[in-house]
This record gives sequence, structure tokens and C-alpha cells, in this order.
Amino acid sequence: MRDVAIIGAGMIPFGRRDEDTLLEMLSYASLKALDDAGMGDKKVDAVYVGNMGAGILQHQSSIASSLVDRLSLLPAAADVVENGPASGGSALKNGFLAVASGYYDYVLVVGGEKMREVTGWRATDFVATMTHPEVEYPYGITLPGMAGMFTQLYMEKWGVTREHLLAVTLKNQEMGALNPYAHVEMTLSRDGIFDSPDAVVNNPYAASPLHLYDLCPVSDGAAAVILCPLDVAKKRGKACVQIVGFGQATDTHTLQEREDPTDLKAVTLASQQALEMAKLKPSDISVAELHDAFTILEIAESEHVGFFKKGEGGKAAAAGKTRLGGQIPINVSGGLKARGHPVGGTGVAQVVDIVFQLRHELPENRQVKDAKTGLTINFGGFGNNVTCFVLKRIEP
Amino acid sequence: MRDVAIIGAGMIPFGRRDEDTLLEMLSYASLKALDDAGMGDKKVDAVYVGNMGAGILQHQSSIASSLVDRLSLLPAAADVVENGPASGGSALKNGFLAVASGYYDYVLVVGGEKMREVTGWRATDFVATMTHPEVEYPYGITLPGMAGMFTQLYMEKWGVTREHLLAVTLKNQEMGALNPYAHVEMTLSRDGIFDSPDAVVNNPYAASPLHLYDLCPVSDGAAAVILCPLDVAKKRGKACVQIVGFGQATDTHTLQEREDPTDLKAVTLASQQALEMAKLKPSDISVAELHDAFTILEIAESEHVGFFKKGEGGKAAAAGKTRLGGQIPINVSGGLKARGHPVGGTGVAQVVDIVFQLRHELPENRQVKDAKTGLTINFGGFGNNVTCFVLKRIEP
Repeated sequence: MRDVAIIGAGMIPFGRRDEDTLLEMLSYASLKALDDAGMGDKKVDAVYVGNMGAGILQHQSSIASSLVDRLSLLPAAADVVENGPASGGSALKNGFLAVASGYYDYVLVVGGEKMREVTGWRATDFVATMTHPEVEYPYGITLPGMAGMFTQLYMEKWGVTREHLLAVTLKNQEMGALNPYAHVEMTLSRDGIFDSPDAVVNNPYAASPLHLYDLCPVSDGAAAVILCPLDVAKKRGKACVQIVGFGQATDTHTLQEREDPTDLKAVTLASQQALEMAKLKPSDISVAELHDAFTILEIAESEHVGFFKKGEGGKAAAAGKTRLGGQIPINVSGGLKARGHPVGGTGVAQVVDIVFQLRHELPENRQVKDAKTGLTINFGGFGNNVTCFVLKRIEP
Repeated sequence: MRDVAIIGAGMIPFGRRDEDTLLEMLSYASLKALDDAGMGDKKVDAVYVGNMGAGILQHQSSIASSLVDRLSLLPAAADVVENGPASGGSALKNGFLAVASGYYDYVLVVGGEKMREVTGWRATDFVATMTHPEVEYPYGITLPGMAGMFTQLYMEKWGVTREHLLAVTLKNQEMGALNPYAHVEMTLSRDGIFDSPDAVVNNPYAASPLHLYDLCPVSDGAAAVILCPLDVAKKRGKACVQIVGFGQATDTHTLQEREDPTDLKAVTLASQQALEMAKLKPSDISVAELHDAFTILEIAESEHVGFFKKGEGGKAAAAGKTRLGGQIPINVSGGLKARGHPVGGTGVAQVVDIVFQLRHELPENRQVKDAKTGLTINFGGFGNNVTCFVLKRIEP
């Protein structure tokens, strides 16, 4: 395998973007990444688009063909990759392997989603299309519903408490408020002092035991990266980021078929594969972006990746170990909770945030000091298809 | 790049399969390919699903996660790849590059579509989701409509006649009637003698100058292949098929933006890339499966790939040069015209048919004698995203 580097990264502010079509969002993020890479007149060989819902939400197919034309990248190859909320991770995987194979040199990977044009039950229904078509969807289960049941089991088995979840909410909202690309800029405080809404009192149940502020928002957004062979990237004389590890694993489509539903086997396997490939241990990682569509997932993933022992993740979050300056800063971007979760875009956005960290270009209140390595978990289905990337700073 | 072989191939009969869900069809085709490969307890590392319409037609996403569980292939990685009617070709591309990269050893690629559960305008509307979302779709253009205009221009510029198109119809219906996997088993005859319907008289306009029998049917179906490194395949002591060439190119999303709308640049480029990689000329190819969603496309593609000079493809078809035993047998399977066109499945089905040819296992009335090399063209959009594979028989 050829070594592969990320030489460009860009994203657009997530949130409600009524003025933009899906293709416009994908285009803007792509142009930012192309510009960041200083591609100039260098030819892009292939484009990978991570997207889950263009068919269902926009009644469109073949959006990669449309995008490559709009970006004037013809005749570059172009495909859409779909893996539910891990579509971005899967798109990056295929771009990565395409460059690693030696077939393509310059690849654009962009992920995005336009979800805000549907509202209420339609948004929840769209996300529920990833549930099992025969034994889940027809019975009305939603992803928040699943997350609620998962949280209840996790609390009972591993001692996670409401205070642990609240620590994730407060951290991610605080960090999101500092991130210019974040959807939710509102800070919350423990007790609602000053102008921050109260994180405890004004926080109704969404899917018991999860409260509203335990859930990520429904977002529009897009993010993109440019890949090329590492040896080409090194000649540019700038710091860049190498994809040193990748892993992907699946688990039973339904949660109820798992022997222990609190055991996120696909997270464990995907991260083991990626860390082994990178020849790194969890304790070698400087900064991580985990898939906190629900606060419980940040805690559970932090344990399954191996940052903390089982049952220690919640306590670690409450003790500040996952904050900036802590043992392992997690979701310094604000995570899905605050940066937002345009489903097909998230896996790429996580990597973009790690690239910003590893290039040491963030303001002091967001930069992990001297960050050398990063890890991302992109969680498809309810943990039934998970991708993991390990990224490393390459000095100029 | 590692050399990559196809060690298993399978498909299910195309047609109207009301009794099967999309996932069942994908499962059946996958099991046939796994069985054909004699996988036994060998582990599949990754699964690629080519599908265009699960979101729009079945209101489902993440079908790769569902499939990998249903096939008991957990924890294999699994992604859906979408590129309109070239989704199958794009899925195979990514499986191919994944094995070529060295990251995965055994990969299942399956393509399929369930289209017959929608009828009439809904089926046409589904296919039209691949048109440009702003300058085509809202104005009601359909793919048959585009093909009609393309045919008119092609006839005017390159001298293709109604008789040339009819030669493709008759050949492909005749061959499809011999193919147990084909959707349309009805033979047509020039003059309607005996019990064959008349191909001229009872053949109304569908999209002038195209008649009903110039169009492929709307089909359910699925097809699958198993990939592994060539050196591993060689140890099996059986003939296998190597992917010796791959190419993919895009063109303007819309037909009207092309300087010469009869010039299918993406077909030319994709086939040039694939043939160059294979170090072969068009005249070295023993058998081809071209994307004849409309009869005109078989003729136009046979010219753009380089089997015939521009303006000679129609005459060649009428002279029998593309029939079994001719200069270059095209669509011996019956092509999309008669095998059928479950859009996400077609690109894989074409390769399965070439594998059958190159393994010399078809009955005499369908086998291209001593076939050594094959080529496929999978045509996305209206020629805006095209994949090409060149395959070669590897002796045991």
C-alpha cells in the first residue's frame, strides 16, 4: 500500500442553510478543501461523495456526477458512498484505498447532507430508514428511541449517571460555541446562571433517560478533504497529515440481537484495526473526535476505543479528563452535539477537525497543544457499521 | 497495485420478482457467487453493494449493513456505492481498488435493484432522478426522451438507420431468449412469422425515433462477484478471470452542454483508460457487454470503444458482425435489452456474463469460442459517468 496524506481540508458552517441546495453545500466545502490544498491546475483524478439521503430527502440520485461537473473537475471519476451516518467515513475509506492502491493520485472526498428542509417526524423518519427494514422500521423504532434504551442498559451495567452525561453536554456545547463552523453556538451552564440556559431544569426528556440536550441537532452541512500520495505531499514543504490507520467493522443490524447490547463490538474492532495498522496504542492519541449523536455514545465509545476502561468513561468525562488540556481531549470541535450532524458529512468533518488540530492552526482556546496524532469514530446505524481513522502529523 | 482476480460469479434470474425484497435478491446473488467461489469458511473482508434506488423506491438506507448481517459475514466492512445506472460498475471499481491496495483480500461485490414495485410514471420518474436537479428534472425530461433526441442526432450525423437499430433489437432478444437469467424471453422476428411477435409492425413509438422494442425493460434483479488477489486465485488450480483494466470518466451532467451531443466522451475515455491499463487494443477483445438501455447506445458505444469507426457501428450490427461468431460478439447475454436492467445490478451482471464467457462454461449457442478477453461498458446518467472493465482469462 502507498502511504496517503491529507493535503487539504475545508468545511462550511453547519446549521440551517435554507439558501443552499445540497449540491451547493458540497461544492462550497470542496472548493475550500481544493483551495486549502493549493491545487491550482493540478488535476483531481477522482471524487468520492459521502451522502445518505439525497434520494429520500432531495429525490436526487447520481449527485457525484452532478458535483464533478459543477466543480469543473471533468472527466474525474465520481461515486457516491452510502453507509448511513457513517457515509462520510466510508467515502473517505474508499478515497484512501484508491490512492493507496496506486490507481489515483489526487482524490477529493466530500461528505454532506441537507436535512433541515424536512421537519418534525419526517427528519426522524429519514434517520430511521437505517433501521432494519423488516424487524425494526415497521414497528416505529427511532434512533433516539434506541439510544434511550441503550442508555438505560449502559447506566445499569456500567454505572453511568445523569451527571456523567451532563458533563459531555456541557463540554461539547462550550467547545461548539468557540467553533465558527458549529451549528449550535449556545452555551449551557449547570445552573442557568447569567444568560446561558439551564442545562438541567429546562431540559425535558427526549427518549428517557436521555434529555433534549443529550441529542445532536438535525443539521445541514458539508466537509471535504484532498488526498494524495505521502511522498508527493512531503515535497510541498508544509506540515501535512498522514492517514496512518483505518478500520471498519459491522455488527448485527439490530440492537436486540446482540448478546450484550451495551457491547459496541464494531467500535472495538474498527479502532483495534486502525490502531494496529498505525502501530499505536489508545494512549498514544493526542485528540479524538467521537460520534456523540447522543451523549452516551461519547462515553461508550471512549471506553470501547480503549481511552478508558469499561465503566470509567463517564467518570472520566465528569472529572474533566476529556476536556482540552485533559488526558485525552474528545470532541474539541463541539462534536456532533454542537458542531451538528449532517449525517453524510459527519465522518469527513471529524477528519477535517483533526487535520486542523494536527496542523496546529486553531486558536489557543481550541488547540490541543503539540497534537501529533488523532482518531475519529464514525458510527453507522446503531453501531452496526463503524469506521475509524488514525491520523498523524507529518512535519514539513 | 496488486493484481486482482474474480474467483466467483453468480446472478439470479432478472424480471419481475414480487416475492423477493431487495435484500433477498442481493442475498441470493451473493450466496451464488460465494458458492461459486467455493469460499467455504474463508472470511470475506469487505462487501460492496451497487444500488441506486433503495432510498427512493424502498425508503431504506444502509442496506449494506443489513446485507452483511443477513449473509452472516459480520464483522466484514460494508458500503453502498451509487452512480445511477453505473452503480454496479462503481461498486466493482471500489472492491477492485480495495483488493489492489492490499488492504482487503476477499471482497464480495453485489449489485441489484427492485424496480418493479413501482409502475408507470413512477418508474420513469425514479430513473429521472439522475437528471440534473435544476436544469433538467423540473422540466420533465426523462431518460427515454433524452435517448430519443440523441438517436435523432446520431441518425442525422452518423447515418444510423431504423434497420440498424432493429438489428440490435432482434439480436439481443434472440440471445436473451437463450439466457436462463434474462428478463425478456420473448423472441421477435423481422416479419412476425410463426409465434414471434412482429418487430416492425407491432412496435409503437416510445420516444421518437425510438420504438418500444428499442428500450430495455424495467427489471428486478441482482448479480455478484467475489474478488481476491490473483496470486491467491492462481493457487486454486482452476481457470479464473483477472481484472486487467479499469477506467471511469465523467462528462457534462446534461446532454445539451456538450459541444457535440453525439460524442460520448466519457465512453471513449473510460475505455481508453481500461484498454491502456490492460495493454490491449479494441481488436484484442473477444466479447463485450455494452450498456444497451436503448438500442442506439449499443451502436454508439461499439464505435466509441473503438470496435468500429464512427458511422460504421450500425452497419456492422446489421451485417451480423456483433453476433455470436462475428467480428466482436456484443451482448451475447441479451444485454440490458433482454437480460433486463435492474439499474444498480447491471454493471455487475455484465461482468458476471463475461466471467461465464471467459471460463468457457456456456452452452454452444451462447459461448464465444475460445474467449480470452472481455470488455464491459456501464453507462451512468446519459453518458455522464461511465465505467469500463477489461477482463482476461487466466489459465489454470
